[in-house]
Amino acid sequence: MTTTKTRPPLNGVDTPTLFATLDAVKANPELAKFQFRATNQWIAGTHNRSTIADFFGVGEERAHERTFVFDADHPAVLVGRDNGPTPVEFVLHALAACLTSGLANIAAARKVTLTEVRSTVSGDIDLNGILGLDPEVRNGYEGIRVVFHVDGDAQAEQLAALVEQSRNRSAVFDVVTNGTHVSVDVATA
Amino acid sequence: MTTTKTRPPLNGVDTPTLFATLDAVKANPELAKFQFRATNQWIAGTHNRSTIADFFGVGEERAHERTFVFDADHPAVLVGRDNGPTPVEFVLHALAACLTSGLANIAAARKVTLTEVRSTVSGDIDLNGILGLDPEVRNGYEGIRVVFHVDGDAQAEQLAALVEQSRNRSAVFDVVTNGTHVSVDVATA
Repeated sequence: MTTTKTRPPLNGVDTPTLFATLDAVKANPELAKFQFRATNQWIAGTHNRSTIADFFGVGEERAHERTFVFDADHPAVLVGRDNGPTPVEFVLHALAACLTSGLANIAAARKVTLTEVRSTVSGDIDLNGILGLDPEVRNGYEGIRVVFHVDGDAQAEQLAALVEQSRNRSAVFDVVTNGTHVSVDVATA
Repeated sequence: MTTTKTRPPLNGVDTPTLFATLDAVKANPELAKFQFRATNQWIAGTHNRSTIADFFGVGEERAHERTFVFDADHPAVLVGRDNGPTPVEFVLHALAACLTSGLANIAAARKVTLTEVRSTVSGDIDLNGILGLDPEVRNGYEGIRVVFHVDGDAQAEQLAALVEQSRNRSAVFDVVTNGTHVSVDVATA
C-alpha cells in the first residue's frame, strides 16, 4: 500500500485514488453494489430519447454532474428518420468504451504510459430475424468484432496484454458475450 | 398487400414504407444483411469518445444523415471525471430504445394508436467483479429490470402484448439476454 500511495497519476488515471478505492472496497465489499438507470420516452415512430441522471453506489443515491440525454432512431432505410443512431449501434459504443476505460486503468496500474488507444467495433446482423421473416435467424448480432490499436511505452505483447486483461474485467463484454437476465414488465395507466 | 398499401402512417411510423420494406426483404433476403460500426478514441483516464457514422445495409455502404459522437466516462466515485455516462449505462439506453422502437412499429402494424410510451431500466452490478476482488462475482450486470408505461387506444392486455412482441423481436434484448460472440484483436503500431 505504501508504494501505491506514492504513485503519481498516469494516463489521466488518478492512480492513488484508484488504489485507495480498491482498498476501501476490500474493507467493505458492500460499497461495490451499484445500480445504474436510464429512463426512455417515445417521441414518434422509431425515435425515442433516454435520460441518464442518477445511480446508486458506494452506499447512497448519487447524481451525475449533469444529466445526459441521447436520442435513438432508425435510418431512413429502416423506416426511421435518423434522429440518432440505432439501439444496436449504442451497444457497439458501450462495448468499445468499456474495454477502453478498463485498458487505461490497467495500463496505469502496470505503469505503462499510453500514447494512443483507438478501436473499431463492427457487428453483423441479419434483419430477417427482427423482421420475423426467418425463424432460423436470431434477432441480435451474429457476431461482433473489436480491433484495437494501442501505442505506449511498452512492448507489443505487453500492450496486447492490457487489452486482454481489460476484456477479462469488462462489464459490457461480459453482458454482451454471456448474457444477463432481463425482466420486462408493463404498467398500463 | 393491397390493404397494407392503403394504410396511412400511424404513431409516426410510415406503415406503407414499413410493409413495402418487408415485401422487398421477402423477395430478396440478402437486403437484410447489415453491418453496424462504431469507432472509439481514448482521451484520458476512463474518458473516451465514440463516433458512429456509417453502416452497410440493403446491399451497399450508407452514411447516417449526420455523424453521431458520444463520450463515456466514469463518475468521480469510480475514479473518473463524469464526462459522459458509464459504458454500462449506455447498454440500458440501448435496451430501452430497442424495445421502444419495436413497440411503435408493432403498434402501427396492429393499428393501435399510442399516446405515450415510457420506460425505466435499471441494472444491478457488483463492482467486486470488475475490480477483481471476488472471483465469485461476475463483471457484468447481475440482472436488468425494464418497466414500461404504455398508453393508447387499446385494452391493457393488447398494450401489454405490444411490449411482449417487441421483446420477442428486439435485437438488443437478444444480445443482452442470450449473448453474442465478440472477437477482440489488437494491432500495436
